[in-house]
Amino acid sequence: MNEHSAAEEAGSRQSRRRGREHHRGAGAGGLQQLPRRAITRNFPPTQIVSADQLETIHEASLKVLEEIGMDFLLPEARERLKAAGAEVKGERVRFPRQLVETALGTAPSRFTLHARNPDNNLEMGGAHMQFGSVSSAPNCSDLDGGRRPGTHADYRRFLKLCQVFNCIQFLGGYPVEPIDIHPSIRHLDALRDAATLLDKPFHAYSLGKERIRDGLEIARIARGINRQTFEREPSLFTIVNTNSPLKLDNPMLQGIIEMSSANQIVCVTPFTLAGAMAPVTVAGALVQQNAEALAGLVMTQTVRPGAPFIYGGFTSNVDMKSGAPAFGTPEYMKAVIVGGQLARRYNLPYRTSNTCAANAVDAQAAYESVFSLWGVTMGGGNMVMHGAGWMEGGLVASFEKFVLDCDLIQMVMEFLKPLDTGIDALGIEAMNEVGPGGHFFGCAHTLARYTNAFYAPLISDWRNFQQWQAAGSPEAQHKANRLWKEALEAYEKPPMDAAIAEELDAFVARRKEEGGAPTDF
Amino acid sequence: MNEHSAAEEAGSRQSRRRGREHHRGAGAGGLQQLPRRAITRNFPPTQIVSADQLETIHEASLKVLEEIGMDFLLPEARERLKAAGAEVKGERVRFPRQLVETALGTAPSRFTLHARNPDNNLEMGGAHMQFGSVSSAPNCSDLDGGRRPGTHADYRRFLKLCQVFNCIQFLGGYPVEPIDIHPSIRHLDALRDAATLLDKPFHAYSLGKERIRDGLEIARIARGINRQTFEREPSLFTIVNTNSPLKLDNPMLQGIIEMSSANQIVCVTPFTLAGAMAPVTVAGALVQQNAEALAGLVMTQTVRPGAPFIYGGFTSNVDMKSGAPAFGTPEYMKAVIVGGQLARRYNLPYRTSNTCAANAVDAQAAYESVFSLWGVTMGGGNMVMHGAGWMEGGLVASFEKFVLDCDLIQMVMEFLKPLDTGIDALGIEAMNEVGPGGHFFGCAHTLARYTNAFYAPLISDWRNFQQWQAAGSPEAQHKANRLWKEALEAYEKPPMDAAIAEELDAFVARRKEEGGAPTDF
Repeated sequence: MNEHSAAEEAGSRQSRRRGREHHRGAGAGGLQQLPRRAITRNFPPTQIVSADQLETIHEASLKVLEEIGMDFLLPEARERLKAAGAEVKGERVRFPRQLVETALGTAPSRFTLHARNPDNNLEMGGAHMQFGSVSSAPNCSDLDGGRRPGTHADYRRFLKLCQVFNCIQFLGGYPVEPIDIHPSIRHLDALRDAATLLDKPFHAYSLGKERIRDGLEIARIARGINRQTFEREPSLFTIVNTNSPLKLDNPMLQGIIEMSSANQIVCVTPFTLAGAMAPVTVAGALVQQNAEALAGLVMTQTVRPGAPFIYGGFTSNVDMKSGAPAFGTPEYMKAVIVGGQLARRYNLPYRTSNTCAANAVDAQAAYESVFSLWGVTMGGGNMVMHGAGWMEGGLVASFEKFVLDCDLIQMVMEFLKPLDTGIDALGIEAMNEVGPGGHFFGCAHTLARYTNAFYAPLISDWRNFQQWQAAGSPEAQHKANRLWKEALEAYEKPPMDAAIAEELDAFVARRKEEGGAPTDF
Repeated sequence: MNEHSAAEEAGSRQSRRRGREHHRGAGAGGLQQLPRRAITRNFPPTQIVSADQLETIHEASLKVLEEIGMDFLLPEARERLKAAGAEVKGERVRFPRQLVETALGTAPSRFTLHARNPDNNLEMGGAHMQFGSVSSAPNCSDLDGGRRPGTHADYRRFLKLCQVFNCIQFLGGYPVEPIDIHPSIRHLDALRDAATLLDKPFHAYSLGKERIRDGLEIARIARGINRQTFEREPSLFTIVNTNSPLKLDNPMLQGIIEMSSANQIVCVTPFTLAGAMAPVTVAGALVQQNAEALAGLVMTQTVRPGAPFIYGGFTSNVDMKSGAPAFGTPEYMKAVIVGGQLARRYNLPYRTSNTCAANAVDAQAAYESVFSLWGVTMGGGNMVMHGAGWMEGGLVASFEKFVLDCDLIQMVMEFLKPLDTGIDALGIEAMNEVGPGGHFFGCAHTLARYTNAFYAPLISDWRNFQQWQAAGSPEAQHKANRLWKEALEAYEKPPMDAAIAEELDAFVARRKEEGGAPTDF
């Protein structure tokens, strides 16, 4: 153990002690937050296009796959698809619709993503919803330290925040890329951290065969299970971004092959910015997204029929003046909702995202994120990537935004909690007691309920102006700044079997000695 | 004409000239904004409670009206209700359910709110949606002048902003209360301004018989019509807030009687903060809201069967620690959506609000407002009060928030615009041209569409971090500050028939000479 992790370990022990002293209510270490609970929608998702319009998009996607096709750069992938009935010419693969229909027939509509702590298992699909952290940002920021490239230390801080907040149910990719670790071994340290600092499900990047195999092994060891059980119980997921338009590269295809072979979860997510990597219309971008996602589906089912697959969407628009990606826009919302209609037409779990394109944790960051969450929630999103922390179109993971987003997610969770319309909730007894012109503050009905009657926000400051001004006119981002530090203080490292921890360390050490993974593709 | 208005008139003439020089695209004076258009939902509103649960709430409301009843302070109102079959004992009125059923039978489900410019007429009910300005704030604020009590000058500035922005379709109450005008004549100056600085529909406060009669007359004169036509064509609306719980005072009841007698629009809006003026449960607050709104409905229909009525809801929660109102919360969202289910059960147009409880135009102001708009839009809100400018739970009308909210409203409008899934929009031709691995920036399909392919935001800054930082790291509220000033510059006073303007001035002058309206209730 190096001095860095020894210091952290000491800090963790102290946190655990402090946590136990302060543990009241729902939060580790006294942090006020909602308790851990499954999130489900109890009303049907919104449909903004008709069934006919949806068929139009579906048919257009099939036409694209049949007539234009996609470039699959990995020879092995092309061979497998050819054997399955695809038409292969050079790197171009064209898909007869029967291939798509067959794949839709074998892909499961529901499955479990297992965590090393079974309390944190996630049910994918249906009316379930799960939120993950921001992923893949090259930089991070906070109000004190400013904007900076990612480091292992900041990466670990984000992992701890993911573990602390109950509303974050999984770790996506690296919240911020720890670029101070050499790329050949980065995945080893990063995934060991993911497996040990948290006991929630996590992700491995499809960056070549070696990295994904290392990820599979780390996930298996962390769960303390053998390969057979591991294949039966999906315990890892990967996001495969197609190279829109209409291309899939070697590392991504190796990821699909390795993951699907092992019956682990593949989420194919085209990154289709309308006007840039996709047609400039929302419908066109959706046709292309759909074609690419279905091609990815065929790949997984060809490797292993029945392998778990998540339909991913990441369609938005660009600022046509500059080409910069735009998020949380009306176009984004429509694409997210129609993407949900498509995913449900295919009976597949649906992955979406909480996004924004702001540079500061200001009103823009907030409204773009809430508009995203509006589309995601009403559109039936199941797995929500980048749930907390995303800024600048994905270039930055912000600590303040992380806490703000957790507040937003908690509000969505509370919004989704069914309304109690039982006899006591109807409050007629209270209205009788209080009578016309009275006040409910002190009546029995209120006194019995007020301590947890309403959602207690993390951020919202509801003090009157004079009190607020006297407190220094704090804005939302200032409060968020205070809260992520409190949350880190509240972090408690989840227990891990000593033998498992040793096996993990031994695996990581061995692989490092072997040189890790290749660094050029 | 006093020197104040002469200076403004000169400014207006200059603006008009400047406006004509700069008039391009959708905006007066070059202001970039969406064109004027009707807003309609093309998907059904969300239902978060079942039909059975809705009946439970409905039945509970009837029970409240039958058994507890409401205090109606105005003797004339009680007499009318008694004659209609209500049970009256002192100030307490109890409503047999038959009275409610009868009223529901005569109230119209759709009607037009006429403006003096028929292009600005509004269809109330159904799938239509309209946004109004903030109303009734005692203070206003902007980043330069800070927070201050309302004045006539600021009031007029807000009116001009309402006229400039196409997404604001009506003027609610006074965006900010012009307290430098004596209360006895304030309504005369304020409504003359409403009738002349804008050509959109406006509102009159139910603050006693004299004020509402003056409002009716100003609205009639401004439209240049006689009394008969005026009664046939509703041209004014009033928001009647019940004195929750379960009470209606003299000024509000006089308002109902005068307005309904003249066939003008009454929107009864209980102000039911759960835990304060209503039971501490959302369901209980809704039961009370519903009872009060239905009682108000009965009053209007008793005065004149068929008089236009809007079902209003303003249910939210309080911060139980302090009793301060909370807005844009999960509770608010649920109440707004169920309120919509109730209004549609009754086949009545539904009034809702865009709200927040923030002290600064920061992330909190933005997320609370977007959560409000989420509930309002998905809940089927028709008339949306306080659409733009509301801060601090209604205590402040903010110029920056006004512009921010207009951007949010425009995003909602764009979100509601049906998705084009026609053959060209599907973009297959573009995908063919670009091919796998290509780019859509320069292809024919994109070039033909890009200039207006996507919503152009007022506020969102999508520049990269370096550019944004070099520009001084501007935040959303700073941009909003610049934009409200540009919007004011773009203001063009709508034309008005000289004879009508004279008649208005003469009416106001005469009423002022008569002493205006009484100032104590």
